[in-house]
Amino acid sequence: MKRAICLFALLPALLAAQPAAQPTWTSPEVHSDGRVTLRILAPKAAAVVLRGEWPGGAKELPLNKDGEGLWFVTTAPIPADFYWYHFLVDGVKTMDPRNPLLKTGARSSDSAVDIPGPNAAHHALRNVPHGTVHIELYKSAATGTLRRLHVYTPPGYEEGRARYPVLYLLHGSGDTDREWTSYGRAHLIADNLIADGKLKPLVMVMTDGHPADPNNPSLRARNTELFTRDLIDSVIPFAEKKYRIDARRERRALAGLSMGGGQTLAAGLKSLDLFSALGVFSMGIRDDSFETQNQELLANPGNVNSRLRLFWIACGKDDFLWEAAVRLHETLEKRGVQHTWRPTEGAHTWPVWRRYLHEFLPLLFQ
Amino acid sequence: MKRAICLFALLPALLAAQPAAQPTWTSPEVHSDGRVTLRILAPKAAAVVLRGEWPGGAKELPLNKDGEGLWFVTTAPIPADFYWYHFLVDGVKTMDPRNPLLKTGARSSDSAVDIPGPNAAHHALRNVPHGTVHIELYKSAATGTLRRLHVYTPPGYEEGRARYPVLYLLHGSGDTDREWTSYGRAHLIADNLIADGKLKPLVMVMTDGHPADPNNPSLRARNTELFTRDLIDSVIPFAEKKYRIDARRERRALAGLSMGGGQTLAAGLKSLDLFSALGVFSMGIRDDSFETQNQELLANPGNVNSRLRLFWIACGKDDFLWEAAVRLHETLEKRGVQHTWRPTEGAHTWPVWRRYLHEFLPLLFQ
Repeated sequence: MKRAICLFALLPALLAAQPAAQPTWTSPEVHSDGRVTLRILAPKAAAVVLRGEWPGGAKELPLNKDGEGLWFVTTAPIPADFYWYHFLVDGVKTMDPRNPLLKTGARSSDSAVDIPGPNAAHHALRNVPHGTVHIELYKSAATGTLRRLHVYTPPGYEEGRARYPVLYLLHGSGDTDREWTSYGRAHLIADNLIADGKLKPLVMVMTDGHPADPNNPSLRARNTELFTRDLIDSVIPFAEKKYRIDARRERRALAGLSMGGGQTLAAGLKSLDLFSALGVFSMGIRDDSFETQNQELLANPGNVNSRLRLFWIACGKDDFLWEAAVRLHETLEKRGVQHTWRPTEGAHTWPVWRRYLHEFLPLLFQ
Repeated sequence: MKRAICLFALLPALLAAQPAAQPTWTSPEVHSDGRVTLRILAPKAAAVVLRGEWPGGAKELPLNKDGEGLWFVTTAPIPADFYWYHFLVDGVKTMDPRNPLLKTGARSSDSAVDIPGPNAAHHALRNVPHGTVHIELYKSAATGTLRRLHVYTPPGYEEGRARYPVLYLLHGSGDTDREWTSYGRAHLIADNLIADGKLKPLVMVMTDGHPADPNNPSLRARNTELFTRDLIDSVIPFAEKKYRIDARRERRALAGLSMGGGQTLAAGLKSLDLFSALGVFSMGIRDDSFETQNQELLANPGNVNSRLRLFWIACGKDDFLWEAAVRLHETLEKRGVQHTWRPTEGAHTWPVWRRYLHEFLPLLFQ
């Protein structure tokens, strides 16, 4: 098969005369009503289960087996969006061997399925002007290593000399600097908003939030500290040197989801000389350590309020961090720290975070 | 676990007091002598096999099972390089669930293992100035769709106004525009050569060589034609508009591996007004259709010879296309078409293609 395909490029006439190797089944198969059929060939398996990031959080569905050992299941209709899933084949996590779409991560990967529709229009690939995603390597003073980051520049960036406002956008635990674009589609969300006249062009810098080796407990405990130093000492100077970024604090924002929301609170609130807007997606506090660690800041809410043009906190009511987010909101309210509290539907999932970014971006720099 | 890690960012003191969840095993484990131990937990499986792109081509190794259902195998020493592998768990292709390193592709993905050492120094991540990898979307006139491509710009690109020579670099069947960087490490190969003074800075444009849906036989037969139109009508104009590329043919080259080598022959030899250098990695011809399709060109070898400053053809002696590559070389020689014939060790694998790129790049534009 591989041989046939390689030579095919050179010898179309020869190979077109041969019967084409046709897959007799595909996976995933997305139906027009949003149901999805998943299939995997595993004749020797005793049980196969589908696990996916469907609405309401991760769910599991058992597959059925036909006489040839092909396992299959069709889901109920799923709202249009971009989801991850994998199979458990006799308990072993298995990506869909027929599907090239991925959700990558810092520890392992999953397969992904794209269900198009109006519900997913905010991150659809549309025939509009598109920006560029850049992959960069930079030297981190905090870790002493080369680290990677992704940068989004908007359509038209190359054509002028203008400087752009910038959002530093942080991922959650288990992801890397890659997933806000490769799976979160942050670049398409921005392209679509700009095309629709709802967002002025901006630059987004997406960093890697795991400077500490997560397998090293002593380093892991320092992750937030290392991340903050890396961001301020290395990432921001690197980005501002290499890209035409407006370096005024009024034009610099910080936001993140889950762990990245925690890093936004930790790095952002201590660096109000650098940031004029913060976004906390699906994160909160579960004890009084936030108040303990931010005593001085919380004692002078007027200082925070005068510096932050936007302090946006959103969480889904089905999120396992919902109560922690409510506690964050109530703590800030009690202390007189102005913020936008945005409770929503949804759980701790990427469809929620794509919608948060779509809602948050137009609130910045307007 | 997920919950603990998310909150961890905010509450280091709380969680540092808890016992860290330590994996009791890792996979892959690379030993200092180049042996690699692979492990996967599959208590219910009857047989697990490792399949990988080791030197000499794909090989399979059976794993052994311990009392807990953990399967394991240690390979013989493998030369330092970057390889793909996966498990067959009772015949089901399974990526390593403990390993975030990937080789992606157009149809499915594999796990990847990085074995560092002098043999892999040409694509190692070194503390030298690094260029940038850009991900672009462009409108293809040939397909009528938005397509993706990757662009490498060298260190210092942003700082000046210079225009750079350009290599259009093509992947093989089953890959996409992403793999020359994500797995082939073309950007690191160029960065290292530039840092060592062996290569003048250049731009590399890596396109997607599958414009036709490979599952559609009638379209698939037109892939080379669609690719050539896409390259010439859309990719080159897009790249030259968006990047500071020297648009003279003396400064424009085309090269590719396997299917991309066939596309280089098909598109390049018919467009000598556009390209002054061609590279064909691990590709050849198996019948007389090449001569039939290029009658006019082969009848006037002086025209080819005066236009091509470099026509570089390389193949490994263990490659399944070795005899086809020899036939290409001998056909060109017989017809008086000047070229560099570079027979090497190796098979139809990425370690060979990384070495070809490392050898080929300094021959361009000097």
